[in-house]
Amino acid sequence: MAGPLTLPQRVTIREVGPRDGLQAEKLLSVEARARLIDALSATGVPKIEAVSFVSPTAVPAMADGAEVWKRVHRAKDVAYSALVPNRRGAEAAVRAGGFASLQAFLGAAEGYNRKNVGKSVAESVGDVAEVVVVARSVGLPVEASISAAFGDPYEGDVAPERVLEVAQRVLDAGAGSISLGDTTGMGTPARVWDVVGLLRDRLTGIALNLHFHDTRGTAMANVLAALQIGVTEFDASIGGLGGSPFAPGANGNLATEDLVHMLVDMGMEVGIDFDRLLEASRLAEKLVGHPLASQVSKAGPRWAKT
Amino acid sequence: MAGPLTLPQRVTIREVGPRDGLQAEKLLSVEARARLIDALSATGVPKIEAVSFVSPTAVPAMADGAEVWKRVHRAKDVAYSALVPNRRGAEAAVRAGGFASLQAFLGAAEGYNRKNVGKSVAESVGDVAEVVVVARSVGLPVEASISAAFGDPYEGDVAPERVLEVAQRVLDAGAGSISLGDTTGMGTPARVWDVVGLLRDRLTGIALNLHFHDTRGTAMANVLAALQIGVTEFDASIGGLGGSPFAPGANGNLATEDLVHMLVDMGMEVGIDFDRLLEASRLAEKLVGHPLASQVSKAGPRWAKT
Repeated sequence: MAGPLTLPQRVTIREVGPRDGLQAEKLLSVEARARLIDALSATGVPKIEAVSFVSPTAVPAMADGAEVWKRVHRAKDVAYSALVPNRRGAEAAVRAGGFASLQAFLGAAEGYNRKNVGKSVAESVGDVAEVVVVARSVGLPVEASISAAFGDPYEGDVAPERVLEVAQRVLDAGAGSISLGDTTGMGTPARVWDVVGLLRDRLTGIALNLHFHDTRGTAMANVLAALQIGVTEFDASIGGLGGSPFAPGANGNLATEDLVHMLVDMGMEVGIDFDRLLEASRLAEKLVGHPLASQVSKAGPRWAKT
Repeated sequence: MAGPLTLPQRVTIREVGPRDGLQAEKLLSVEARARLIDALSATGVPKIEAVSFVSPTAVPAMADGAEVWKRVHRAKDVAYSALVPNRRGAEAAVRAGGFASLQAFLGAAEGYNRKNVGKSVAESVGDVAEVVVVARSVGLPVEASISAAFGDPYEGDVAPERVLEVAQRVLDAGAGSISLGDTTGMGTPARVWDVVGLLRDRLTGIALNLHFHDTRGTAMANVLAALQIGVTEFDASIGGLGGSPFAPGANGNLATEDLVHMLVDMGMEVGIDFDRLLEASRLAEKLVGHPLASQVSKAGPRWAKT
């Protein structure tokens, strides 16, 4: 490969289908949700965001996270995480036990954050700090997911300096790593270079995960842009599970099989068995009962000849 | 924008929806087809592949190209082209008159070419040469579209050197420019750098257009990869019109509005009115009578606040 820039040899995928993907679906049985997680761990994916501990009133499809987690056959080489909105969620996750890390979250911009959790960003930083206190009591690291990092559907552009400021605040609050989210698909490669470039320069040594949605068709280009400036960890959702909450019919999460397919063809190692990944995709589609957005699941990998 | 590489300031889009897009649909009326072309010329797009002169038995949806073309209100700042498979098609296009150029086509690999036109690549080079003779008689340039340039669904990988060889042969036959097609969506950024990089190095001064399909979700990343090595012209199809002929349900052509949206957000000039482009997309969807694959047509542009 004669790329214009050096790309990483190894990329880490965090599978978020069981959490971010299923969140927008009708409530599945705890057995079905655990089965999907197990199908994913069988692919070799190194990280899975398995469940969340949020209010079942706010997010009905994520009810009974502890029950789902109990039924999961935990693979020892998979780092499972749980998403928690606040101290109460963190306490529930700690009670459930067995997670490698907790995900706290907030928005980079006031508009999105208020719509999403009904709080100011400052208040949400406080929630992250409380999650850290709970997690530290049992030695768990906390990653802070910063949503609307590439644009806010209510406020429009979000300055890279603003994203940096929020990142610094959650790091000061004790988060150990950062994930930048593009929940509404407003990122493009130029914005990735701007935002991620600034954070890489200013937050040396802080692990960075990127979470793209394909709402406007840019997710894969954004991944390429990020790889070119040294990012090596990405979220993806099996089958592209999880449509856009803001645009009916539009794509949501970047599909794991499409991402893996591209990375593998470009010579990067991801440590995932592709056939098992397609099996997990078929299972996901069967469980939710409607076609998923991923492309490679329909077309097959490029190496499968017609 | 702090990109790792210099990107072009200006990008040329050739709209191929009326030809490549509609080709896989049921036959529309000549009035509807002309109306779509006119809606597209109203966007400011500088190039439109308007019709083809192929056998109506082979491609029923492209019947009556001359009748469609007669009804088009030809904008003087749009360069319209016609796709022609051979001398007979070229003669029909020349009789119809008014095109800025003709598109001849062939495959880079024997497997795809034989399935597509029932001939060897060498025989197809002969067809390109005959198209050139006809076109030259009226002073028209010919672009040769080389399909399966990033992989062949029957043969698998296609060596960049093979694509170069076929390009050299059609240039020797008198084609004035080259389009590399990824009709079955087998391209990834690494392959774009390999194939396009080789052609840029070896065919200095030859205009190059790239034609990506999103069959495996890589089209936008491929565009980014190509922009980074200096390509400035891309095909796209309104609404993503034209599903994959090889994979039911999979995406086909890269959607014009998704491509333009990304390029514009990255600061590149394309000379297209975005609102009119969305109007043309709605018209295309109405005419074919089913949802199209484009994302921005569903989610709206990122600058339209919620």
